[in-house]
Amino acid sequence: MVTRLSDVAARAGVSVKTVSNVINDYPHITSQTRAKVQAAIEELDYRPNVSARSLRKGRSDFIALAIPEMASPYFAELGAAISRAAKKRGITVLIDQTEGEAAAEKLVLDGMRGQLIDGIIFSPITTSPARIGETETAKPIVLLGERDAGGRLDRVAVDSVQASYDATTHLISLGRRRIAAIGVGGGAGTGSVRRRGYRKALKAAGIAHDPALELAGTGYHREDGAASMRELLALPEPPDAVFCFNDLLALGALRTLADAGLSVPDDVAVVGFDDIEDGRYHSPSLTTIAPDMEWLADHAVELLLDRIAGNGEAARRDLTVPHTLTIRESTSS
Amino acid sequence: MVTRLSDVAARAGVSVKTVSNVINDYPHITSQTRAKVQAAIEELDYRPNVSARSLRKGRSDFIALAIPEMASPYFAELGAAISRAAKKRGITVLIDQTEGEAAAEKLVLDGMRGQLIDGIIFSPITTSPARIGETETAKPIVLLGERDAGGRLDRVAVDSVQASYDATTHLISLGRRRIAAIGVGGGAGTGSVRRRGYRKALKAAGIAHDPALELAGTGYHREDGAASMRELLALPEPPDAVFCFNDLLALGALRTLADAGLSVPDDVAVVGFDDIEDGRYHSPSLTTIAPDMEWLADHAVELLLDRIAGNGEAARRDLTVPHTLTIRESTSS
Repeated sequence: MVTRLSDVAARAGVSVKTVSNVINDYPHITSQTRAKVQAAIEELDYRPNVSARSLRKGRSDFIALAIPEMASPYFAELGAAISRAAKKRGITVLIDQTEGEAAAEKLVLDGMRGQLIDGIIFSPITTSPARIGETETAKPIVLLGERDAGGRLDRVAVDSVQASYDATTHLISLGRRRIAAIGVGGGAGTGSVRRRGYRKALKAAGIAHDPALELAGTGYHREDGAASMRELLALPEPPDAVFCFNDLLALGALRTLADAGLSVPDDVAVVGFDDIEDGRYHSPSLTTIAPDMEWLADHAVELLLDRIAGNGEAARRDLTVPHTLTIRESTSS
Repeated sequence: MVTRLSDVAARAGVSVKTVSNVINDYPHITSQTRAKVQAAIEELDYRPNVSARSLRKGRSDFIALAIPEMASPYFAELGAAISRAAKKRGITVLIDQTEGEAAAEKLVLDGMRGQLIDGIIFSPITTSPARIGETETAKPIVLLGERDAGGRLDRVAVDSVQASYDATTHLISLGRRRIAAIGVGGGAGTGSVRRRGYRKALKAAGIAHDPALELAGTGYHREDGAASMRELLALPEPPDAVFCFNDLLALGALRTLADAGLSVPDDVAVVGFDDIEDGRYHSPSLTTIAPDMEWLADHAVELLLDRIAGNGEAARRDLTVPHTLTIRESTSS
């Protein structure tokens, strides 16, 4: 029969909580109580749980993932993938939603210090990555996303310029010439980096970019895509194709096109970015840039665990997530 | 000028990490080092961060939310809502994805003990809530979902029987008579509880339930809904309406109906459950049961904080989340 915490508590004549506190080395326990509990543990040959053993080896085997938005399918799928990648390695991931607020992002970097986590995978929106290196956090950090931290932190990111170039070039290859872009004002550098790839593709095809076709929107959600698409349809010369800087924007744009009675892709072809599940099941299904999410998750976790293992002095690594253009009904009928 | 951790470290002649360890009361610090750091803190009037202050008051102001699946939009939106509700009260939520595995759910209940969290909001799939009360966790727990814990834990849940009754009755009111149900095999009691409401509505309308129209599927995802709908369309007498036990199943079913060239709602009317954002933007938009997510989040956090505040002896509370039937294009043309 397995000895339980409650058996230890009974033998030591203390509460289960006190035994737990001793095992977890919490402060404010008298040495007398500690000795009593430790004697009971030895007498009963009690084997403490994983987290207690982890504490003894100086690690908790918990890591944190800080993302701006849980309810955004891309981040939800990212969180799931990173949880799975970590679990394969015996690590549990705790996810913190910062909502991209500076205060919450600061709490991740500062306040997490109090948590028994070994390191942080951080997808910042508000906090400039260049400033993360300046914080006093004692935890290893791996950065996700468009901006780097001036060479101070490991980072895993898609080549957004190349991916946006690929998406736009696909629309050009279909014979489209008035190609709009939705999301050029996106946070964390996303908007400007993806616009660079979009303009580069237009330029390579000899098409002048038209500022009237570049919409910033107010966010990266379905409602923003729907509103931007309405603006585009109201133009004297509406677009014949739209590259949306994420799938949610594209799904919102598709809804506006359906409401307007327009045909996709015949009237307007649509490409997204992220390859969330929603786009795969949508009618029409969504052509999109598909980053290799498993690759991203595996490498982000691997980099972090390597730092946690003590390779803190190794050179900073910047990994590029492979991506593919996945062609579906929204650009091919 | 604000005193920084690095100033304290410089004054005490130790590393920033050592200062952090002292503030966080980590073990394995000599009393000499501790004294040096504490003297430096006093001389410089250093104000430790939130988490260090929390430790002194015996709370971390972090709570955990354990959900089966991050990438499922319902749980993603739930996580976001609970994070927001907690933040309003100065609490940070860490989210753990259990994937409904017994081992991971046990880790939540046991292993979380090592984390500096004040309590847990738990949405179990595999672990029987009746057994949660038996675990040795010292943390307060609030349960979400269909099954209760034999009266031992606070719980917040939708009245799934009533909600399913409402959804089915809506389809009956449209004149539909061959009403299928998808998801009757769902985990954590969801499938059986929602089927009870579905059958109750059929019975109230004098319609015999037909086991051929009740599909279990293998999960609660889009692919399961799509597969179940294909099975239903292959019946000698296909249904004229489908009640799907969550929105993902409904979105998968809609995809199958589109592929089959059938018209929604004319040929087949579809109702979901959850009111995820995806269903609102889909073409056709999805009629669904909309639980009041903000209410759920506010009350779950409030209940937990009340327990954390020490009201552990108060009677167990079981709160019912208000829901509405939101009628959209998938049942009204």
